[in-house]
Amino acid sequence: MINVSIVGAGQTKFGRHDDYDLRELFALAAHEAIEEAGLTPKDIEAAFIGNLSADQFNRQTHIAPLMADFAGMKGIPATKCEAACASSATALRAAILAIESGQHEVVMAAGVEKMTDLPTPGVIETLAMAADQIFEANPGITFPGIFAVLAVAHMAKYGTTKEQLAKVAVKNHANAVHNPLAHYQKAITLEKALTSRMVAWPLGLFDCSPISDGAAAVIVTKTKKARKFNDTPVKIIASAQANDTMNLCDRTDLTSLYAARTAAKRAYQQAKLAPVDIPFAEVHDCFTIAEIIATEDLGFFKPGKGGQAVEEGLTEIDGQITINPSGGLKAKGHPVGATGVAQIIELYHQLRNEAGKRQVSSPNYGLAHNVGGTGATCAIHICERW
Amino acid sequence: MINVSIVGAGQTKFGRHDDYDLRELFALAAHEAIEEAGLTPKDIEAAFIGNLSADQFNRQTHIAPLMADFAGMKGIPATKCEAACASSATALRAAILAIESGQHEVVMAAGVEKMTDLPTPGVIETLAMAADQIFEANPGITFPGIFAVLAVAHMAKYGTTKEQLAKVAVKNHANAVHNPLAHYQKAITLEKALTSRMVAWPLGLFDCSPISDGAAAVIVTKTKKARKFNDTPVKIIASAQANDTMNLCDRTDLTSLYAARTAAKRAYQQAKLAPVDIPFAEVHDCFTIAEIIATEDLGFFKPGKGGQAVEEGLTEIDGQITINPSGGLKAKGHPVGATGVAQIIELYHQLRNEAGKRQVSSPNYGLAHNVGGTGATCAIHICERW
Repeated sequence: MINVSIVGAGQTKFGRHDDYDLRELFALAAHEAIEEAGLTPKDIEAAFIGNLSADQFNRQTHIAPLMADFAGMKGIPATKCEAACASSATALRAAILAIESGQHEVVMAAGVEKMTDLPTPGVIETLAMAADQIFEANPGITFPGIFAVLAVAHMAKYGTTKEQLAKVAVKNHANAVHNPLAHYQKAITLEKALTSRMVAWPLGLFDCSPISDGAAAVIVTKTKKARKFNDTPVKIIASAQANDTMNLCDRTDLTSLYAARTAAKRAYQQAKLAPVDIPFAEVHDCFTIAEIIATEDLGFFKPGKGGQAVEEGLTEIDGQITINPSGGLKAKGHPVGATGVAQIIELYHQLRNEAGKRQVSSPNYGLAHNVGGTGATCAIHICERW
Repeated sequence: MINVSIVGAGQTKFGRHDDYDLRELFALAAHEAIEEAGLTPKDIEAAFIGNLSADQFNRQTHIAPLMADFAGMKGIPATKCEAACASSATALRAAILAIESGQHEVVMAAGVEKMTDLPTPGVIETLAMAADQIFEANPGITFPGIFAVLAVAHMAKYGTTKEQLAKVAVKNHANAVHNPLAHYQKAITLEKALTSRMVAWPLGLFDCSPISDGAAAVIVTKTKKARKFNDTPVKIIASAQANDTMNLCDRTDLTSLYAARTAAKRAYQQAKLAPVDIPFAEVHDCFTIAEIIATEDLGFFKPGKGGQAVEEGLTEIDGQITINPSGGLKAKGHPVGATGVAQIIELYHQLRNEAGKRQVSSPNYGLAHNVGGTGATCAIHICERW
């Protein structure tokens, strides 16, 4: 069991930000989180900051002290955590361990990515570095290509259809209409999703999450001290992370992620909960097929039944289990280093019943599932209403 | 107080490795550490891996699960920590927090960097990304240039001489002769150091640490359980880290590092020790001036007296306080992501009296001082003999 709570949360709008650079995006999210906890930057004792590759996107390494200092947190330990698209969930986990260690009382977990400084081919090349350089990226496969392989495997084994993939996109875009911080607050039709430009068969443009800029930050503290900072904190009751072989060729199954199943098992054990207890989840839909696989790996649906579940509307806001009420990576946007903490922020707002028109009906629990690369990392957190 | 101990340590030779790639270097160090703790890879519960920028050096992000899986540690949480040249000291600190949290019992802290895959200009450009991109790197200054600014400031304020800088290099090369894992096991004369090719005045070639490949790993566990794994563990009694403004223009003093002074103060408080209690230290001599500043920031010598101390031989193996018995970054080598843990490994061997001809006379304590970039990060650990 984890005894850590969230007492502040801040997020920038996700999308293209031409007027803010990396440190400014971070500071916007950080200050919002700090203020919500009734604190000033000088009260934060340590920061763990998720980021995939400011090295490639912004020609800047060593971003953690730079971000922390720019936001007014001088003198603290500030460390960057990287695990590809799961970077900020691993930063959150490091922050949780720091609190549980007793060495720190008030810690920031954050994530930031400014991807649009590079032209799109550079972004695609950078993202491909999160796959195995020797066996996958160098030979030429990109991320849409890799997830297309998973999609084809899922279709072949379970009969999952292109329409089911498209319905994931339609649902997530519909949810994002009610999320003012989403990259795309715009509904799409099934026809539009199905006829979008092909990227890597069977994945068309609307099966892919966008290239976004953005930042997200939360403040965590010991649960027993949380009410000192916030009238309605949100408890984190499970924090689990697992790795897997990166190279797809060495995996025994392409229709499920071992890291996700392993992390999920640990998270449910920590929280003493079963999949049936979870009313909603933010899952890592970097591609539509990834959401379907996620809902199976998390035990919400049996293996192979995720596609049908979407088709039947079981994952909509008022469905059996709401998936990605925020709009998901697909429509909320996917500034990779910020995504993990942004998922947690959606849990925070939903569990405080403040998610407006995308609010799930009074949930007691929420789960966040953040995948790095093609599943060599998965980090899962479960939160509980205060 | 920290109650964590080192029960296994492994390090590759530092230098140019044409026959091993990044994951192979990591596995060599990881397996040595694991075997010394009497364990197998499957016994390791989590790994934190320091690395500056495999992104730039090897076109590979997401290295933590890749390294862990390749070394046989499948399924565990594996997270990369980055704080420039202090990356693996921050990984060690994350590992310590993980142990202190009670969530894990046996954790690996490691570091790896394979720098020689890039031609030298690419390495220089990559290292410069650890300075402030907007205010320092983009306008054109490189790391030797920045440390030359610090050296000039120290010379102007305190009368530090080019001979004193050169003596740091002579001493560290002399120590490295007895370190079989050092990049350069070769003594140099004062004349050779003083007449070496100028890089950025007053820093010549022999004032600069080399471009190296290498990996280092330690296994840590709770001190009260340490004897289960190793007859002679080494205790970590302090782990402190601080940040500072990255951009030199915003600092009030160029002759001392605020992050180092701040982290040192915290580390001495945690360990309940004073500088005078420390018989030897591994300090971050990325450039010779950095060692002189470090010995002052750590309280071994008064501000401005570090140069004179080197000149008088006070920091030699049998001196008042031995500095860099391993040969330091200058001669042992500086594969940036591996340096912090490699410093800890020197403490481990010295405190077990197994450092051969470079052995400090039966030390009770040792200190490691790892700096990121130009001092926007400093992480300090203090170890104690069992």
